Amino acid sequence: MGGECRVGVVVLGLVGSVTGLSTPTMRLRVERNANFGKLQGGYLFPEIGRRRRAFAEAQPELAERVISLGIGDTTQPIPPNILEGLVSGASKLGTSDGYSGYGAEQGNAELRSRIAERVYGGRVGAEEVFVSDGAKCDISRLQLMFGSAVTSAVQDPSYPVYVDTSVMMGQTGEVGPAGQFEKLVYMPCKPENEFFPELSETPRADVIYFCSPNNPTGAVATKAQLESLVERARADGSIVVFDAAYAPFIRTPGVPKSIFEIEGARECAIEVNSFSKYAGFTGVRLGWTVVPDTLEYADGSKVRDDFNRVMTTAFNGASNVVQSGGMACLTDEGMEEIDALIDYYLGNAQILRGLADDLGLRHCGGIDSPYVFLDLDGRSSWDTFSAILEEAQVVTIPGAGFGPGGEGFLRLSAFASRASCEEARARISKLTHLFA
Amino acid sequence: MGGECRVGVVVLGLVGSVTGLSTPTMRLRVERNANFGKLQGGYLFPEIGRRRRAFAEAQPELAERVISLGIGDTTQPIPPNILEGLVSGASKLGTSDGYSGYGAEQGNAELRSRIAERVYGGRVGAEEVFVSDGAKCDISRLQLMFGSAVTSAVQDPSYPVYVDTSVMMGQTGEVGPAGQFEKLVYMPCKPENEFFPELSETPRADVIYFCSPNNPTGAVATKAQLESLVERARADGSIVVFDAAYAPFIRTPGVPKSIFEIEGARECAIEVNSFSKYAGFTGVRLGWTVVPDTLEYADGSKVRDDFNRVMTTAFNGASNVVQSGGMACLTDEGMEEIDALIDYYLGNAQILRGLADDLGLRHCGGIDSPYVFLDLDGRSSWDTFSAILEEAQVVTIPGAGFGPGGEGFLRLSAFASRASCEEARARISKLTHLFA
Repeated sequence: MGGECRVGVVVLGLVGSVTGLSTPTMRLRVERNANFGKLQGGYLFPEIGRRRRAFAEAQPELAERVISLGIGDTTQPIPPNILEGLVSGASKLGTSDGYSGYGAEQGNAELRSRIAERVYGGRVGAEEVFVSDGAKCDISRLQLMFGSAVTSAVQDPSYPVYVDTSVMMGQTGEVGPAGQFEKLVYMPCKPENEFFPELSETPRADVIYFCSPNNPTGAVATKAQLESLVERARADGSIVVFDAAYAPFIRTPGVPKSIFEIEGARECAIEVNSFSKYAGFTGVRLGWTVVPDTLEYADGSKVRDDFNRVMTTAFNGASNVVQSGGMACLTDEGMEEIDALIDYYLGNAQILRGLADDLGLRHCGGIDSPYVFLDLDGRSSWDTFSAILEEAQVVTIPGAGFGPGGEGFLRLSAFASRASCEEARARISKLTHLFA
Repeated sequence: MGGECRVGVVVLGLVGSVTGLSTPTMRLRVERNANFGKLQGGYLFPEIGRRRRAFAEAQPELAERVISLGIGDTTQPIPPNILEGLVSGASKLGTSDGYSGYGAEQGNAELRSRIAERVYGGRVGAEEVFVSDGAKCDISRLQLMFGSAVTSAVQDPSYPVYVDTSVMMGQTGEVGPAGQFEKLVYMPCKPENEFFPELSETPRADVIYFCSPNNPTGAVATKAQLESLVERARADGSIVVFDAAYAPFIRTPGVPKSIFEIEGARECAIEVNSFSKYAGFTGVRLGWTVVPDTLEYADGSKVRDDFNRVMTTAFNGASNVVQSGGMACLTDEGMEEIDALIDYYLGNAQILRGLADDLGLRHCGGIDSPYVFLDLDGRSSWDTFSAILEEAQVVTIPGAGFGPGGEGFLRLSAFASRASCEEARARISKLTHLFA
């Protein structure tokens, strides 16, 4: 009989008057998430952008001169073979045979397999690789999985996303007068410890965020250092979330590109990674996270299973177009193109190290790393940032933006054109009065 | 003098022995997030995929006959003008002038502006539109913003992501014997209320998830119904999260395509939306969320500001390639192509409504909607799902997968080829013994 419920065109009797309801001053009875009130300032990189725009508006005649060595944003075009992967990934969607809708939330099986083989040399399995729209997003999804009850440890200074997402999840308690959260463990990284944490002085945390090559310090952990990190995590039963987004910059033999080069890491580590810096995919968006099948919570359940639940419930797969580009990255030709891109940025890093020498400033990084971290010898990082923007029209990043431990330092990024790096070196090296 | 901290090549004295640490039976001292233990079963759509694969393995000779009217996955190629947007968005990344790295986390300004103008007719501002990688992901990010202290209400049955992300965030308490969470408000949608909730019988919740055209019921809320929803939200000081992902299927004059067509919604509603069904972007990944500047928490702070913090901290912008495709969707030519795609799927929906007539089953949807919700008249939805897969090799979705209120119903999706819909109707209409 096929009786229908055509509710789409039936007006029911539930409608009340809406007159007088359009006052714009209405407030909800929903309480703001208290964790958001604890976040310190705006997220760093948009804040840098705001200051740059404010400068350009205040001094429009100088706006065109501005060079950015700020946010670690790739500038070189995508090389031909990798580009062809992206273009063909898009083009085929116009054909019946080539069209695809939803893919697996965990990523294309062939791409997962290539990552396992070509990035990790088979140290991890394809089913342990979760393809995503980037490492930043994955860190947030890891936090969603960990929940509010875990304690976290971060390098200080560090990429702000570790701290901010910990705050959002409610893991950190209140912020103290020094700008540090009471329940977050800070691991100072400074010249005195060669920017590697004093693990013996670090309280236990459930989750340890560790980035190498490091953002912002440029420090690269040796194999022995990573062994000590894994040993400590195993002794404490902690999870290391290892951020390897800058791994392809490592050229020194023997320096690990992945935490899974360290014995014992498969039972205590997760690795987040990204094509952003490998292949200039910062805007294209493609990353991955490795969660070993051997990683088990205290109750014996697999961490991988919960992360799989996050990826299938709170994510819907990376773009098929973009994954096609990722496939091209992991061919022989694509990997050669990646090497050439990294060579280019490493050449820039060498120029920025030269700038440090010009100024007579101690620094870290720029070897096996795209970042040079200038030691301002006690000077304020925001003041120095502002002075360099005003006087040389170069955008840098104040170390204080990466946490209290970054005060007194300035990060320079090699993600720029060669000409920009050379010009920035020429301009800033004249500002000797700032560092006298 | 440029002293360096070349920690990358220095071995420090922190290394302990790693012998004996490689035992694979090590367990962490990290407690599993208790909220994940409360999740009910696997996420629905992967579960359907698993059952489909199990059938194909058990009866390989029938595997090729399988037709999917299951997951709402687009099947038609991307039309030429929209495709050109994607392809050119990829191609230009190979040039110095066309290359772009990180974009604004909130999306390309021109795309935000086009969405505000062309989708919303200027009812919302460009700065209220947040471009993303899809509605599913945005729902998760909204939950991250709301936190664990809010109460939520969902239609029953409903798209599983609302419930599952509420559980993950810890909003729901324990699950009861009927499979319902103690702190979640369920709003039954059934033939007796023409699939629109009895708002007068619904307890207050902080956040009300509401989807129209509805997934899975296919019901489309009238203007009067949405007015009653907004009136109730305003009276309760609640936030409506309105899921408009199927809006372009609405062809009946006067039926709202957006909650912002309703007076007073700007102070109590958020809208999530997506290009997935508009333009066949299910695999391409592009969506958006509108958070009005006029939406204020109880403390007077702007919801928009917190969502902006989520987007900048836990997300890094939708792919530039994909946003270029989104721009092409919102040209005159692109919008005509979208209309033609929707016409095609609406034609399929009419065939599926015909199937309901063939079987003499009551149904909802298929008008202004891609889904037809068959009323099985008390029969088990999983049993009927299995019988149709076994006997007709057609994948459907059991209503029970969308919550307790979906038991006794079966969802048919019009996202398939015309030929598949006709063949599925022919096959299933012979299974009269299942519905005798």
